[in-house]
Amino acid sequence: MRLTAENYDIGIAEPTALLHEDDCRIIGIREGDHVRIEGRGCVTAIASMSDTLVRRGTVMIACGVLGASCIHPGDEVEVTAAPIPESVRAIRGKMDGEELSPEEISQIVDDAVHDRLSRIETSAWLTALHIRGMSMCETASYTSAMASTGSVLDFGDRRVFDFHSFGGVPGNKITPIVVSIVASEGLLIPKLSSRAISSACGTADFVEVFCPVTHGSDDVRRIAESEGGVFSWTGATDLAPAGDRFIRVQRPLGIDPKPQMLASIMAKKVAAGATDVLMDIPMGSETKVRSPEEAKAYARDLMELGDLLGMRVECAVTYADQPLGVAVGPAPEARECIQVLENRPGHEEVAEKACICAGMILEMAGMCDGTVRARECLTSGRALERFRAIVRAQGGMDGITSEDVRLGRFSADVVSPRDGFVNRISNRAVVSVAKAAGAPADKGAGLVLSRKRGRKVAKGDVLMTVYSDSEDKLEDALEAAAELEPFDIDGMLLDRIRPGSLR
Amino acid sequence: MRLTAENYDIGIAEPTALLHEDDCRIIGIREGDHVRIEGRGCVTAIASMSDTLVRRGTVMIACGVLGASCIHPGDEVEVTAAPIPESVRAIRGKMDGEELSPEEISQIVDDAVHDRLSRIETSAWLTALHIRGMSMCETASYTSAMASTGSVLDFGDRRVFDFHSFGGVPGNKITPIVVSIVASEGLLIPKLSSRAISSACGTADFVEVFCPVTHGSDDVRRIAESEGGVFSWTGATDLAPAGDRFIRVQRPLGIDPKPQMLASIMAKKVAAGATDVLMDIPMGSETKVRSPEEAKAYARDLMELGDLLGMRVECAVTYADQPLGVAVGPAPEARECIQVLENRPGHEEVAEKACICAGMILEMAGMCDGTVRARECLTSGRALERFRAIVRAQGGMDGITSEDVRLGRFSADVVSPRDGFVNRISNRAVVSVAKAAGAPADKGAGLVLSRKRGRKVAKGDVLMTVYSDSEDKLEDALEAAAELEPFDIDGMLLDRIRPGSLR
Repeated sequence: MRLTAENYDIGIAEPTALLHEDDCRIIGIREGDHVRIEGRGCVTAIASMSDTLVRRGTVMIACGVLGASCIHPGDEVEVTAAPIPESVRAIRGKMDGEELSPEEISQIVDDAVHDRLSRIETSAWLTALHIRGMSMCETASYTSAMASTGSVLDFGDRRVFDFHSFGGVPGNKITPIVVSIVASEGLLIPKLSSRAISSACGTADFVEVFCPVTHGSDDVRRIAESEGGVFSWTGATDLAPAGDRFIRVQRPLGIDPKPQMLASIMAKKVAAGATDVLMDIPMGSETKVRSPEEAKAYARDLMELGDLLGMRVECAVTYADQPLGVAVGPAPEARECIQVLENRPGHEEVAEKACICAGMILEMAGMCDGTVRARECLTSGRALERFRAIVRAQGGMDGITSEDVRLGRFSADVVSPRDGFVNRISNRAVVSVAKAAGAPADKGAGLVLSRKRGRKVAKGDVLMTVYSDSEDKLEDALEAAAELEPFDIDGMLLDRIRPGSLR
Repeated sequence: MRLTAENYDIGIAEPTALLHEDDCRIIGIREGDHVRIEGRGCVTAIASMSDTLVRRGTVMIACGVLGASCIHPGDEVEVTAAPIPESVRAIRGKMDGEELSPEEISQIVDDAVHDRLSRIETSAWLTALHIRGMSMCETASYTSAMASTGSVLDFGDRRVFDFHSFGGVPGNKITPIVVSIVASEGLLIPKLSSRAISSACGTADFVEVFCPVTHGSDDVRRIAESEGGVFSWTGATDLAPAGDRFIRVQRPLGIDPKPQMLASIMAKKVAAGATDVLMDIPMGSETKVRSPEEAKAYARDLMELGDLLGMRVECAVTYADQPLGVAVGPAPEARECIQVLENRPGHEEVAEKACICAGMILEMAGMCDGTVRARECLTSGRALERFRAIVRAQGGMDGITSEDVRLGRFSADVVSPRDGFVNRISNRAVVSVAKAAGAPADKGAGLVLSRKRGRKVAKGDVLMTVYSDSEDKLEDALEAAAELEPFDIDGMLLDRIRPGSLR
């Protein structure tokens, strides 16, 4: 059917073509069908119908779709029903439990990254993945397909080291420290990090406090080649962008299908040119991985996937039953990160974890006594020197110190309601308090713990200090702290049971 | 966060709230999250983000959502992250293979019908249903929940008969005939039908040729009570509207999960107040049901579901290896339907199937020799009389005859390319030709077969006549006929095999 094209200003990430209901009946299509729109160029879109918002004889095309075609508003175009995309057949195959071919998997990823799949189709794909899973061969194909959707960093024949922390532990600010140590030992480690998804602060969120993180792929490669390391934001590069398409759809469902998670992580590594990757798997009662068995299962999958992709993978299972270090939130974590590099006391946990992870990477490169060597690198100040060089190369200030980091203007202490011991600090509650204070959007927002697990406290002792850029949010954060009680304070007597006191 | 509300003119069936990316970061939400919008009234919506199409400090709310709230454009509203709906937890339960409670199922249906589920969530639900299925108890809860989403016809203590044909056989115009026979015997049969989904013509599409079909629930009840029967369109009533929400999402995926299909059909029957239902299950190589075993499995499910719902269900498995009768398309089927009621020769197949189905319903009501009685009703003209009374009550012309039905202005014959026998007529190809001619949107479009399966034909004999309201579409239909060859004409010698002729 011949229709006039119009621009449809719509913000959703779906290639929509809005048509009048009567025209849809004539064309023989319904809501959600794929249509082919042919004019100067040719493009496909998902049909949406209305009997009031669009005139008969007109097709309103989402700007994104119109932009990708050569069609101009006002053009006469031919609109016909498009066949069901090949990838929808493959999605149905996965629903029915089939093993998909590399070509089918590649088609799905290609259609997703070029906005040819509707959200209905993408949701069906992720639901099918959640239920049916994938073989390791399929996962490897999926990873390769996702890696090839964007640019790939090329460092020639050099070994490229990389590092990835599974989420789940607040205050995990070791990435710039690990990168600085590894790079100062002459290795290449172009590390790209994400922002917070549901946490109070991702690595990119706190690094941004002391230097820019929005570097394109070429800049990342250039900085890594000159400084040996980089700690930038993955979102500004064009590395494996397909993962984000899927995350946008799986988040509202609260699912994270295992093959999707593995492929998303590994695709970024493949695209970053990594040859050797250390995986940090935090284990704790409030993280994704809760038992040694689960941790081993993840490690086995990651290593097997690495083998199939020609990449060496090692895993560190790390303690995550409370926040790492004392600071949570962008500026607090930025400050603690630099304090560790400056060898200030009071941050031993963070230094220990960073040196162990960096040490494992050094050993993967063939060096001996990795942790000792990493520790020496840190205490000698060589790591700090390398850190400052990278910060400068990323466009940050020269000779940065922890004193340069400003925390939120408003702050308040949370004190212990009783004498006792810190039995437990809830990661989840700490994250909620920091988010209520404004993290990660407000850079100054967050908190600094004064007591960690196992420490004795007296009634009225400060447990933590909450920081915020706004008085209102500080109030919200204190309310959240009162309600969620991140600190579980008990005496040695946890309960007193007498005859008749048990229900 | 406090924002100003604006109207967002958007045609998609999803409750969208469009927000600026910066505001989303501050509120702590992402694309696809549920948000709560509180002003004069309170409403939830699905967040969509843009950094160009919406100003900071503004939330653009889809008209449907704004209409349902008491919020006016220009109002200041408070926007916060809403918790994940309970039904999304239940959807995840189904993904993980859990048996859902009646409350959980009812929550999902309620959220779907009130537009509280995004298409991502609805797609995940249908994919999970397709893969995991439902127990018969869950399906019964699902049916009841869907039936209670709209109005319910109440005929007091009377027995209410109903009839449903599974799709798949083109030219199946028996519904008004069955209704007329059953009603003329004093039974109550308020039959509601659908329009074509992928076929060339649904019952409502051809009935509309001779009388209006868009009656609300009250009119349907009134006509059924006065005339004993009705053949109207289900879409104009408010009976079990939930089914349509799901169909819109499952169609693009090309899936039809069995519990969804069973519940959608039965919910309409429950809402129509049916106590006794005859199910017509057409069986043939190009229909949904292809073997006697499949037909029995469907019948068993439908009867078991009927038992759980307190409804008597019987099934007729019917021949569907070629189109029923000679006419396909709205006007052609309307004419043939009335010709059968007028006892004109040449439509014996249609009369036979209608009398068998009507007869089974009469026997369900306790009458003897149902088919004989139905046949007598048809040949005596009592069925025609009742048919005309219903047409009049629905707002159609008085004393309608088959001569009153006008076929498409343009027509052309398709002739046999050779001598032989009609070996096969492809349902699918016949439907494609009728749709190319303009069916079901163009009422005059369709075709009339001159030869059915098994008949001898000479080269040049007319096989069928194609009708259309437009010369272009007639041309398209003839091209489709040439390409798809609905008729398979062979001599008695199908192949001649000699040494060396086999590959």
